[in-house]
Amino acid sequence: MIDTLIQKIEATKNPTVVGLDPRLSYIPSIIKEEAYDLWGKTTKGAAEAFYTFNTRIIDEIADLVPAVKPQIAMYEQYGAAGIESYIKTILYAKQKGLVVIGDIKRSDIASTAEAYSDGHIGRVVVEEEQYEVYSEDFITLNPYLGYDSIAPYIDNCKKYDRGMFILVKTSNPNSGEIQDLDVGGEALYERVGKLVHGWGEKLMGSRGYSAIGAVVGATHPEQGKKLRALMPHTYFLVPGYGAQGGVAKDLAACFHKDGLGAIVNSSRGIIAAHQMPRYKAQFTENEHGQASRQAVLDMRADLQEVIG
Amino acid sequence: MIDTLIQKIEATKNPTVVGLDPRLSYIPSIIKEEAYDLWGKTTKGAAEAFYTFNTRIIDEIADLVPAVKPQIAMYEQYGAAGIESYIKTILYAKQKGLVVIGDIKRSDIASTAEAYSDGHIGRVVVEEEQYEVYSEDFITLNPYLGYDSIAPYIDNCKKYDRGMFILVKTSNPNSGEIQDLDVGGEALYERVGKLVHGWGEKLMGSRGYSAIGAVVGATHPEQGKKLRALMPHTYFLVPGYGAQGGVAKDLAACFHKDGLGAIVNSSRGIIAAHQMPRYKAQFTENEHGQASRQAVLDMRADLQEVIG
Repeated sequence: MIDTLIQKIEATKNPTVVGLDPRLSYIPSIIKEEAYDLWGKTTKGAAEAFYTFNTRIIDEIADLVPAVKPQIAMYEQYGAAGIESYIKTILYAKQKGLVVIGDIKRSDIASTAEAYSDGHIGRVVVEEEQYEVYSEDFITLNPYLGYDSIAPYIDNCKKYDRGMFILVKTSNPNSGEIQDLDVGGEALYERVGKLVHGWGEKLMGSRGYSAIGAVVGATHPEQGKKLRALMPHTYFLVPGYGAQGGVAKDLAACFHKDGLGAIVNSSRGIIAAHQMPRYKAQFTENEHGQASRQAVLDMRADLQEVIG
Repeated sequence: MIDTLIQKIEATKNPTVVGLDPRLSYIPSIIKEEAYDLWGKTTKGAAEAFYTFNTRIIDEIADLVPAVKPQIAMYEQYGAAGIESYIKTILYAKQKGLVVIGDIKRSDIASTAEAYSDGHIGRVVVEEEQYEVYSEDFITLNPYLGYDSIAPYIDNCKKYDRGMFILVKTSNPNSGEIQDLDVGGEALYERVGKLVHGWGEKLMGSRGYSAIGAVVGATHPEQGKKLRALMPHTYFLVPGYGAQGGVAKDLAACFHKDGLGAIVNSSRGIIAAHQMPRYKAQFTENEHGQASRQAVLDMRADLQEVIG
């Protein structure tokens, strides 16, 4: 799957992943009213509004980006209806040819990780029947429990051509509290980076990158540079661009000289573009999909200036 | 909520939490056949069989234990139907007077953690309506992202009298790979323990314990002892007893001298008791609930010998 992702990045000339992390406040009234008419002002109504909102964005950006990254928390908060909306969003994005990175950041012991792995990137078995439930192409994971908590995902990645991005250095303000601790001459995130890079040898693709990638926050440019050197065959998923304060030149260090090696996420900056001063005059609320398209084009231009 | 948990531990004289982590292989044929007749051999059929299985266990153990801990992964793997079964299980356990610890081990940046927090232990808002979606009393969390990834849960714990257990030292074989790293004269798990203990000051209950607890694996007795000393006001959730190899004397160090300070989880050893040599002769498959009851009584006796 890492080969497919790279191929799509090259085809679109765009190392961008659009974070599908909807909030009701982003969604045009007409979409919400339609959903509430059918389902009431309920968790189901909210979840269905999310789905419609997502499909309209996906329709406008599918030819411009390689991948989308739905954040499961935004859906999970609405219970079963939310999970249904999350799964429908994934299937819709895949139908439109996009690679889907499920931002789930799960972490658990092996016997439990197997259940997450089978559900998200493998198959669940009910007697003689098998089901593909979530269908993400990649998922994100948390490394705190160590290798045996990751191994069950590696098995399914091999079997079903999937991949993962493991948290190494996150983009939030307090990420250093644990991740920057000195563990004998290097920071914990560097040690975790080396571990992840080592695990990645088990899942090398044909383009010199592993299907085990790393999450490396764009808000820490010098750290991205260190990790790029320590983890040459690891693809980086870089959150924090745009709304979280990361700018293109800060994340140039996450890329190799050939322009590969990283994919940059933007969520609010793309999916809520229609509410931003930059696009508000040009697009109505109901043209939110077209505003997202323009924001993707502008982000691509911004990135291309830096990574060439 | 930590006060309620302690009160129930005292009332039942039993610091045990029963892990509701069902697998189809544990479930009596008659329950499965009924579910498949209604829903087919589908994810819905499996999820409904889980729920029936859980209710029969809960009916038998509700007077003997203070709490249950459903592991969301076992349900989440079945998609929306699984999440519905997870939520129904929580509501059923709460109706029967049990404290519910949702084993979700989530970790994310603050804006995302808010969504998890609102859904699991707070309220989600859809226009002028508010919904309590998951209704767990406690949830488990992963600390790798630092304090700002935990803060959104603290707000809801205050508002709705809830609590959390944060991973400090886990019970799996490779937990030391990251958690045991030396961070300047102490292991990472000790540093994390101190951080968690400090965060806990924001949520102190009336019995001298915080609503911010810690997950401390029973498979590492000497580490439990160290953490007990470092974290006097922190309640420990101790996994690993029974099937994972932890024995009662190993986890005595997790308790204070008054018998408080820890709650010990057993999952397979209780909910699949009817399949174990020790109980198989005495209970038929269809008496799985009664077998679970007996296993709870035996575990209580085992723990009482050690913690007095």
